[in-house]
Amino acid sequence: MAEERGMALVTCTAPVNIAVIKYWGKRDTELILPINSSLSVTLHQDQLRTTTTAAASRDFTEDRLWLNGEEVDAAQPRLQACLREVRRLARKRRGDDDPSPLNLSYKVHVASENNFPTAAGLASSAAGYACLVSALARLYGVEGELSEVARRGSGSACRSMLGGFVQWHRGERPDGRDSVAQQLAPETHWPELRVLILVVSGEKKAVGSTAGMQSSVDTSPLLKYRAEAVVPERLSRMARHIQERDFEGFGQLTMQDSNQFHATCLDTFPPIFYLNDVSRAIIALAHRYNAHHGRTKVAYTFDAGPNAVIFALEDTVPEFVAVLRRSFPPASNGDQFLRGLPVAPVALPEELVAAVVAEPVPGAVRYVLHTQPGPGPQLLRDPERHLLGADGLPRRTA
Amino acid sequence: MAEERGMALVTCTAPVNIAVIKYWGKRDTELILPINSSLSVTLHQDQLRTTTTAAASRDFTEDRLWLNGEEVDAAQPRLQACLREVRRLARKRRGDDDPSPLNLSYKVHVASENNFPTAAGLASSAAGYACLVSALARLYGVEGELSEVARRGSGSACRSMLGGFVQWHRGERPDGRDSVAQQLAPETHWPELRVLILVVSGEKKAVGSTAGMQSSVDTSPLLKYRAEAVVPERLSRMARHIQERDFEGFGQLTMQDSNQFHATCLDTFPPIFYLNDVSRAIIALAHRYNAHHGRTKVAYTFDAGPNAVIFALEDTVPEFVAVLRRSFPPASNGDQFLRGLPVAPVALPEELVAAVVAEPVPGAVRYVLHTQPGPGPQLLRDPERHLLGADGLPRRTA
Repeated sequence: MAEERGMALVTCTAPVNIAVIKYWGKRDTELILPINSSLSVTLHQDQLRTTTTAAASRDFTEDRLWLNGEEVDAAQPRLQACLREVRRLARKRRGDDDPSPLNLSYKVHVASENNFPTAAGLASSAAGYACLVSALARLYGVEGELSEVARRGSGSACRSMLGGFVQWHRGERPDGRDSVAQQLAPETHWPELRVLILVVSGEKKAVGSTAGMQSSVDTSPLLKYRAEAVVPERLSRMARHIQERDFEGFGQLTMQDSNQFHATCLDTFPPIFYLNDVSRAIIALAHRYNAHHGRTKVAYTFDAGPNAVIFALEDTVPEFVAVLRRSFPPASNGDQFLRGLPVAPVALPEELVAAVVAEPVPGAVRYVLHTQPGPGPQLLRDPERHLLGADGLPRRTA
Repeated sequence: MAEERGMALVTCTAPVNIAVIKYWGKRDTELILPINSSLSVTLHQDQLRTTTTAAASRDFTEDRLWLNGEEVDAAQPRLQACLREVRRLARKRRGDDDPSPLNLSYKVHVASENNFPTAAGLASSAAGYACLVSALARLYGVEGELSEVARRGSGSACRSMLGGFVQWHRGERPDGRDSVAQQLAPETHWPELRVLILVVSGEKKAVGSTAGMQSSVDTSPLLKYRAEAVVPERLSRMARHIQERDFEGFGQLTMQDSNQFHATCLDTFPPIFYLNDVSRAIIALAHRYNAHHGRTKVAYTFDAGPNAVIFALEDTVPEFVAVLRRSFPPASNGDQFLRGLPVAPVALPEELVAAVVAEPVPGAVRYVLHTQPGPGPQLLRDPERHLLGADGLPRRTA
């Protein structure tokens, strides 16, 4: 916590996570308690991150919030729930006679920025709330279990509070105290694992996930069955595949669980579609590629949007990226097609092209972001990276 | 049965049916026994029909089969199973001392034609096998329960053996004797009911339904649950909606069951997609249209292909067809956009257009076929309509 002229200021970054056993549906919408446990991989912040600065000062007259440079309503219940919970933990920790200079009744200013498009199915709210809670906790000197607080902002945000491979436990308690995230393995556990994000469209999704999942809980008989009967067995199986670094098992189950999540969206009434024809072309390509190699070399998963996330081992990436270039020839600026971690160019064997590349769809994939599993939220100590200036206002607008 | 120069000749027509509680998955692939009961509406043969001529003669040296003018292999197991079953019933009926002139060991020639594209998700095999079995049964003088025989050709063919509203009972017996079709109500039961078939694409489907449903049975946990726990309750509810001519209930459940069928396809591994972006645009349009009117005025259902089948009451059809014209402006020959039963043109209220018609997609729907529920297979007595000539060969090729 930095203090300048009576103002306390903290800046953190937090990661996106991508679920391989999906969360879809709340059993308590107020406390954000899920109908089933879920399991995710935290992605590296070198490529995808939210940065959040939180400041508190006796001079602030109201809570204020800027998202990607635009001021938005700070009275929104989820933000306030996170703020209230962090202050409650701070009060509990300090005791009544704590001499800490930072008064818990001070108003806060929060500025948050993503380095990727918001609401494009890339779990921006997960990174956003994880970052908010991390920054507020540092601001108030709170430590320890914070995933429960992040969960109050956005369910999947609790999984972004940890790096590597993370399970969000459904929990049993009505008050949600046991609905927390737990790290199954750190990001260093599976050093060969890579992630390709295929950005199909920057459009805002048609049905937001909060409304969508509630509609699914209300109307889909298949979702209820999935949560009760399918997910528990899949979770323990997935944890074992990760533990054993078994890509065949991990990849197959990742694809199956993505498909089942989208199946329950289709079983919702009215039905919800997040996959489009390009998503389906990517799915078909992945299956042809795996069939050609006779094993699972790539595994797709899709969240609430048309963008694909592909898992692969390091040695598969150059060939599969070349396949993507052939299948979805970049419309223009081909040099911007691949972003993130570098990939060595390779020549594709002609029989692979013949077997795997169907009719190319130019421009269908806007770009491919190459990343890998990464750590949980980070504190930034460099004051240059604060998003709020000494006056408590944004230093720049997006 | 007509006889010309020692050749017996029969021509029948048979209808397409469209399931409102879907059949997907066999518990016995040899006998074609389904994992769940299903319920369908038989469509009128004035618009969609198969015509089949079956002939037997001592002069024929082998079984021969022509589909849409092209000779195909008559040794295929499903055709032979139907032929064997009809002959078995004939033998049983006649007794050993029957003086009938038509020897059961004579070879047969069969010619069959659809007046609609094959394998475009329009249940051509259902009409085809229903027609084959109807013609063979007439040829051999067999009467009574024939849906069990048609089922051996193609599961859903058993439902095309009856008109109106038809339930195919799953049955319990291992030999399939109780897996038969039953008419719940004749086509005259609900005279206002209309059907619009939106032909999206004439492409042959990517995954045939025989292979697709087997893959679903083998890999989809949701399909198993659907068959065991969801369908039984839906069947009795659907039968009640039909009995009461309750379009609201009928339409909602029809849409929900179509969506759930496609959800189990997506839960199959590798996943199967029959809906494409145009199918999804039609689904969204139907929901906007119903929402605008505050009740279920149109109900979609999709089989193993991208074409939509829309149910509506007679008084809704003119307005909804006008909405379709606005939403999917015909690419060319706009006069061919609507086929089948005539529809009076109407002007659309501007507020309806504003609320319901999103971005028009020109040419996405090739044409709309307007039809209604109809009767079961028919015997054609006009010798001009035989597809085989006096020589036992096709009179014309397609």
